Amino acid sequence: MSDKKLLLLSSSREGQTDYLEHALPLIDGFLDKSIKNVLFIPYAGFAMGYDKYEDKVNQPFQTIGKKVTSIHRFDDPVKAVEEADAIAIGGGNTFHLLKELYDNELIDAIRKRVDQGMPYMGWSAGSNVAGLTICTTNDMPIVEPRSFNALALVNFQINPHYTDYQPPNHNGETRAERIFEYVRANPHRYVVGTREGTALQLKDNKLTLVGNKPGLVFRDGEKTRPIQCNTDISWLL
Amino acid sequence: MSDKKLLLLSSSREGQTDYLEHALPLIDGFLDKSIKNVLFIPYAGFAMGYDKYEDKVNQPFQTIGKKVTSIHRFDDPVKAVEEADAIAIGGGNTFHLLKELYDNELIDAIRKRVDQGMPYMGWSAGSNVAGLTICTTNDMPIVEPRSFNALALVNFQINPHYTDYQPPNHNGETRAERIFEYVRANPHRYVVGTREGTALQLKDNKLTLVGNKPGLVFRDGEKTRPIQCNTDISWLL
Repeated sequence: MSDKKLLLLSSSREGQTDYLEHALPLIDGFLDKSIKNVLFIPYAGFAMGYDKYEDKVNQPFQTIGKKVTSIHRFDDPVKAVEEADAIAIGGGNTFHLLKELYDNELIDAIRKRVDQGMPYMGWSAGSNVAGLTICTTNDMPIVEPRSFNALALVNFQINPHYTDYQPPNHNGETRAERIFEYVRANPHRYVVGTREGTALQLKDNKLTLVGNKPGLVFRDGEKTRPIQCNTDISWLL
Repeated sequence: MSDKKLLLLSSSREGQTDYLEHALPLIDGFLDKSIKNVLFIPYAGFAMGYDKYEDKVNQPFQTIGKKVTSIHRFDDPVKAVEEADAIAIGGGNTFHLLKELYDNELIDAIRKRVDQGMPYMGWSAGSNVAGLTICTTNDMPIVEPRSFNALALVNFQINPHYTDYQPPNHNGETRAERIFEYVRANPHRYVVGTREGTALQLKDNKLTLVGNKPGLVFRDGEKTRPIQCNTDISWLL
C-alpha cells in the first residue's frame, strides 16, 4: 500500500483573507513538526518573478515555523527534489508550470518521491498538476507543454477554484458546462471540483475534503454528486 | 496583396439577445448577396451534437436568405472546404475544434481558400482559431490538439468574450491578468481582446472593429491601448 501524503488546496486565498492565511492551519496539520524546510516550486508564478514569489510564500510559512527555498536557487533541480523533505507547488499559470516541470525533467522525480512518502502540497495550479492531466485547469494556455499529462498523484482530475458563479449578462460557458464537456470527451474520468478555501487531503491512506464547503464529483452519464467535508472519499483513489 | 475576407465575432450572443441575433446584420453585410450556401464547421460544439448544432445555426441564417451545411455531412471534409463558397466556424470548445481541424487535415485547406478570397466567419472558438495560436482562448483544455498553432489568418492573437468583470470574492485571475501573462511569456505578440457583441472585420484590405464597444490591444512592455469601433486598425496585420 502506498504511503502518499497530499494536501491539494483549491486556492491561496479564501474570500478576502490574506495570502495562504486560511491554508496555514491545514498545512500545519499536514506536515510533521519535524519538517522545517520545504522545497518550493514557483514555475506557475513566472510573471511575478521567482525571488519575489519565494519571499511571498515564506512570509506565511515562517509563522508556522517552516521555511521554503525555491527550486530556482538549485543548480540541479532533480537533485533538489530527490533530497527534499517536502514539496510545495504554488499557483499561477498551470501550463507554464507543467511546461517547466517537463523541461526540467521533474515529473518522474516528483512522482517517485511522493510514492516514497514525501509530503506534497499544492494550491491552485499546484493542485491541478497533481491530477491525471491538466485538462480541467481554468488557466489560459499561454505556453505549450510537452504533454497535458500531469503528475498523476491521484487517479482523477482536479478543478480548483470551483464556482457556480456566472457573471451577469456574460455568455461564456459556466464552470459546470466546461467540466461537462470534459467528461463528455473523456468518459471514464472523474473530475473533482474543489471550492476556494477547501483542500483534498490524502493521509494514512484516507482521502478527505477538508474545509467547510462541499465539493463536487463529475462523471459522464452520472448525476453530479456533492462531496461533504471530512468524510472518507477514498473510493476516488 | 491578399484579398482575405474575415468576420471574427467575439460571441454568438450579446447580453440577452437571441442566438446570433446581433450578428445577423454583420454577417449580412459581410457576405455577398450571391453567396447562399455556407459550409459550417461545428467541431467546437461536439457536446451538443453536430446535427443539432447545424439546425441551431440554420435558424438565424435562413432569416437572411443563407443556408449552412455542416461539414460532418461530407465524406471528404477537405474537398468540402475546397468547394465551399464561404465558411463559418461556430463557438464551443476551442481545443476540441482545433484538434478536429488537425485530425481532419483542414488547417492548410482552410488557410489556402482564405488566401484565395473565400469569406471566413467565426464566433468565439471560431474566431480564436483564426489567430496565430489558441494560446489566448478562455476555454478548458479538455482534449489535446496536435499543436497550439492555429489557422493564422491574422498575424496576432484574439481573445473573444473579453471582459473586465471579476466575480466578487473570487480569487482566480482576471482576464487582463491572464493576457498579461501571455504577453509576458510571448513578448513579440499582439493580443486583441474583443467584447461580446463586437467583431473584427477584414474586407478590402482594411481591418476594423465593428459593433459598439471598444476593444483592447495588449503587448508586453506596452501600455494597453483601446481600439475604437469603425476605425482603421490595419496596422495590426
